[in-house]
Formats: sequence, C-alpha cells, structure tokens
Amino acid sequence: MDAYKKAGVDINAGYKLVDDIKNLSNNKDLGSFGGLFPLSLGAYKNPVLVSGTDGVGTKLLIAIKANLHKTIGIDLVAMCVNDVLAQGAKPLFFLDYLGVGHLDNEKAKDILAGVVEGVSQAQAKLVGGETAEMPDMYTHGHYDLAGFAVGIADQAKLLSKANPREGDVLLGLASNGLHSNGFSLVRDILFKQNTYSLNDRLAGCNRDLKDELLRPTKIYVKSVLPLVEQGTVASIAHITGGGLPENVTRILPDNLSAVFDYGSWQVPAIMKDLQKIGHLSFDDLLHTFNLGLGMVLAVHSGDADEVQSQLQAAGEIVSRVGRLTSGDKQVIIRKDQQ
Amino acid sequence: MDAYKKAGVDINAGYKLVDDIKNLSNNKDLGSFGGLFPLSLGAYKNPVLVSGTDGVGTKLLIAIKANLHKTIGIDLVAMCVNDVLAQGAKPLFFLDYLGVGHLDNEKAKDILAGVVEGVSQAQAKLVGGETAEMPDMYTHGHYDLAGFAVGIADQAKLLSKANPREGDVLLGLASNGLHSNGFSLVRDILFKQNTYSLNDRLAGCNRDLKDELLRPTKIYVKSVLPLVEQGTVASIAHITGGGLPENVTRILPDNLSAVFDYGSWQVPAIMKDLQKIGHLSFDDLLHTFNLGLGMVLAVHSGDADEVQSQLQAAGEIVSRVGRLTSGDKQVIIRKDQQ
Repeated sequence: MDAYKKAGVDINAGYKLVDDIKNLSNNKDLGSFGGLFPLSLGAYKNPVLVSGTDGVGTKLLIAIKANLHKTIGIDLVAMCVNDVLAQGAKPLFFLDYLGVGHLDNEKAKDILAGVVEGVSQAQAKLVGGETAEMPDMYTHGHYDLAGFAVGIADQAKLLSKANPREGDVLLGLASNGLHSNGFSLVRDILFKQNTYSLNDRLAGCNRDLKDELLRPTKIYVKSVLPLVEQGTVASIAHITGGGLPENVTRILPDNLSAVFDYGSWQVPAIMKDLQKIGHLSFDDLLHTFNLGLGMVLAVHSGDADEVQSQLQAAGEIVSRVGRLTSGDKQVIIRKDQQ
Repeated sequence: MDAYKKAGVDINAGYKLVDDIKNLSNNKDLGSFGGLFPLSLGAYKNPVLVSGTDGVGTKLLIAIKANLHKTIGIDLVAMCVNDVLAQGAKPLFFLDYLGVGHLDNEKAKDILAGVVEGVSQAQAKLVGGETAEMPDMYTHGHYDLAGFAVGIADQAKLLSKANPREGDVLLGLASNGLHSNGFSLVRDILFKQNTYSLNDRLAGCNRDLKDELLRPTKIYVKSVLPLVEQGTVASIAHITGGGLPENVTRILPDNLSAVFDYGSWQVPAIMKDLQKIGHLSFDDLLHTFNLGLGMVLAVHSGDADEVQSQLQAAGEIVSRVGRLTSGDKQVIIRKDQQ
C-alpha cells in the first residue's frame, strides 16, 4: 500500500470519499460491487429500460479555471436524464464516473454534491459511482466526468417517430443559458481569440462570466414527465451539441419538417455576445448552441394550450416556437418572423 | 459549424464514428437520445437491477504508450460486468464513455471494437455510448474511458452476506495477468524507477512487456453465471484495486474470516518480477495486485467439487485457495503452506 501511495494513488482517500458520498446521498449501499435498484413493475405492461451516458465537455475547463465545482455535477446528471426523458422514460437511477489525476477530497466532494443535487432534481436515485485516481493521465488539476442514467417506460408509451403529425405545435422550453455544449468554441472566442477574464461581465449579461458560463443545465424531468405520462406529448428533442438542427431532426419522421419562427422566443444575451465577439455566422450559432431552448416538445395542436399552461404552472418558461409541416426532415429557421 | 471545427471539435467525424460502431455492434438503434433495452421478466419474481461503473485506470497509459488500443475496451467491459456478476446478477447491457482531446476515428474504432468484443464475451448488449471530443482537456494523445453495465437478478437470488458459512471453500479463478489494477505502481517501477522499454521481456514472462501488461481482463460471466443461476455459489469477490484483502472483506459477514493458503495457486510471473524489480514488500503486492486470482468464489463445501469441475469444463483454471472460518472479517494469507 505504501508503494502504491508513493506511486500517486491514495486508496484510503478514496474510501473516505465513498463515506462522504454515502452521507450526502443518503444511500448506505454505495460502495458495494454494484448498485442495486429494485424494479416496481406494477405500472408497466412491457417495460423497456432506457439508458443514456454523457459528459459535460469542456465546460469542465471553465469549472476548473474558476475553481468552482459545485454545479458541474448538476450538468452531468442533466445531460443524461434529459436524454432519457426525451425518449418518454422516467429516470430511475444514476451512476457517475470521476477521473482525476490526484484525488483532492474537498474538490471531489463539491463535484459529487452537484451530482447528488442533480439526481434529486431528476427524482432519481444515485446507486453507484467510481472515482478513479490516475496519476499522469490528467494534469493541471484537470478531471473528467461521465454520467450514466437508466430510466423506464412502457413499450407502447415510448416517444417514437410515429407520434408527430403535420400541424403539431413546437413548444420550446427555455434553457438556463449555454447548458453543457459549445464550450470549446466559447473558450476559443473568449480566452484564445480574446483575453477576457472570468470576472468580466459581457454587455447583455447580468452576471460575471464565471457564473454565466457555469449556470447549470436545466433538468426538465419534474415538469415534463407528468405530461409524458398523460400522453399529451408527441415527441421531445433535448437540444445539445449540434443545436436545433441536429437534435430536432432526430425526432422527425421522413415526411415531416420542423419550422421554427426565429424571434418567437428569447435568445440568451450570452449567445448574442459570443456571436458578436467571435464574429460567428448565424449558422455557427445555430449549430453550436441551444439558442435559448433546452428542450423542444412536439404537441398535437389540440393539446398545445393545455400542455403549455401545465408546463408554465410547473415553472417552465414556454414559447410556441414553430410547427411541424409536411416535408422531408428539414429543420427550418424562419428569420423573417423577427 | 466551421467555427466549432476550428475550435477543435469535429462533429462530422463524431457522426462517422457512430456509424462505424453501429456496424461493429450490429445495433442499429445506437445514436438515438437513449439506449433501449426491453425487459423480459418472465423468470423474475422481484427483479432487481444491478449496475456498475468503472474505468481501466492508468492501464490506458500503457495502451497509449504502446499505441495498441484494440483490447483496452475488453478491460473496460470486464471491470464493470464482473462487478455486476459478483452480486449474482446477469449483465444485460452496457454503455461506454470515451473522452478524447482530438477525435482520431481509427484509434476510436480500435477502442470501441474492444468494447464490442467485451460486451459479446459478457453475453450482453451495447445499447449506447458517448464519444466526447474535448480540446485542451486531454493532451499527448491521452483519452479516458468509462463503462456502465446494468444487470438483473431476482431479489432472492442476489448474493448477499447472509450466504457464506463457516467451512465454505474458497475457489480462486485464475486471472489473465494484472487485469486493470495497480498500473500506476507498475509504471512507476518500470518506467520511472527504471528505464524498461515496452519491447523488453521480463525474466519469467513469455511475452514482451507491452503484450504482458495489456493482457485483457478476464470476463467471467460465461463460466460463472450458470453456477450462480443454479444457486451453488454462496458469494463472489471480484478482485480489483486493493487486492484480495479489500475485495474479499466485502463479501464477509461479521462472524467469518477468510483464510487463504498462499502457494495453492499460481502467482503470475509478472507480479513476482515487479516485486523484485520494485523492491516491493509482500504486503505491497498483496494490496495492489490480484496475485493471480481474478475472482474468488465462496462455495458450500458439499458443492465445491461439482462447482470446481463445472468451472473447469467451462475453461477456467480453478484452485482451492482457502476457506471461511469463524472470525471477525479478517482476510488472512497463510504463507506457511508454501
């Protein structure tokens, strides 16, 4: 053990961290060989497990640069559970992987406290995780995070491409800023092409760059899942890397296109600032960022009012941002509506 | 998109990789928001999902140094599914996370081909994954891998601490060398304290260091799961970081200890070489490496012959390595048996 510690791996620090996380998450079973989740299947006729894995990309490098690690775990959970939700499934449980060069228990506790908070927002359970200390792999205080969420849905209730219809209304749910995508471009614009500091505040933003950039990704489970369970949502796109075009395309059947009326929702100031500072084309913006919409729901037109008001009652900022038309899987952004 | 590519992220290379993996894994559903796994529950009265996440530690740095990436994915799957198996569960599906600095599609394909091979050995299904390109996060061709496995068991058949009894026989299943633990110490001894090359061959080893160190972690599902399902295995310890002491302790109830007869199984030459070259104490060796046992099964004495011969028939090298005695959760290695 001494030799291993000298080689840079502190097994006892790892055990201490497991204890801390057990307390944080109120899950005393953490630390066994595998995480357990008993299935209650009463409500499911043909249960399907829906799983997703993701990281938070180089938003991590912002957290590291700012030395603020308490919310990046929320981003991690959000990226995974929103994907599960987008299939029409209820997130059940989550596991995290944290790779570090040197285990700093305080920092790791901050990171994992964010994971615990995210899992709570997703109404799920943290059943396990791995913190891997890897000397020489990560330098400069870098670390990587990967998350893994498993949800469940009845086969017949999975959101499929068979659901959306011509005339469906597209409801856009406001994002909480950049969420966890496009950060390599953000860093390039702010810190390579320019020399901004994380303490600077950009023109339209109401907080410092560090706080603006680290705003945690919104977790939509609590507001959207009840509507999925009611059956009033036809389809859901979680808007991540690739923006509206790539992500909305994934929910379109071959005979439909999605038309967005640009101007019908609010584009966050940070994105307009980045466009200006980075001399980005509108296409660059569109294909990299969420443009202010973290999730887009396709809803049959007769259900749209009711769904919109339920989402608003649940605290979401919801805009009617477009509709499905007959077409061939195009995502069209109409800018003449501005 | 151009701006994003200039900032170091090539979304199209990512899409190409997803297509490659779809072909490799024969799973056309990869690439949707979440991976789907329909549950067939006929056989389960009170199904419990058992999940595990892990990485492969700095064995990665050996793969990177040797530029050999085809088997590290097997290690990744092994680390996760063996943990799931150790709880008495049947692995169902797997997801992988690959974090890279710059996406090299050929290298990523090699890595993920190993994942596909591992998943096949585990008789599971690859339902999803994430390849994250993160400029500035990973340097020098470094990458990180995390895996997530989900399995299922009937509540009543989960292997618990209530199963092992005094007098149970400990059967040790041979490892395939170092597996995926202790590599920070391995690298320290061979490449920092000394100047070995990956093309060197150590005294007792029958292959070059690169091949010896990269021997993939054994996946025990195929041979061990049938015995678990028969109910003839009382408990399983997957021997990973911390070696026999830490991992066998985890299966012991408060009133039992495990006694191992050192010499009753073969310790791989690489470990003896490392001990000699690195001037390691026996304790260092014992607490860092698997000592040649990748998995230890506790079996009631009346079942031991039958279990041993079934495992051997399934291709495992099995040794009677010790027994459970009344005690207080100690793992004792008796060296006087040599």
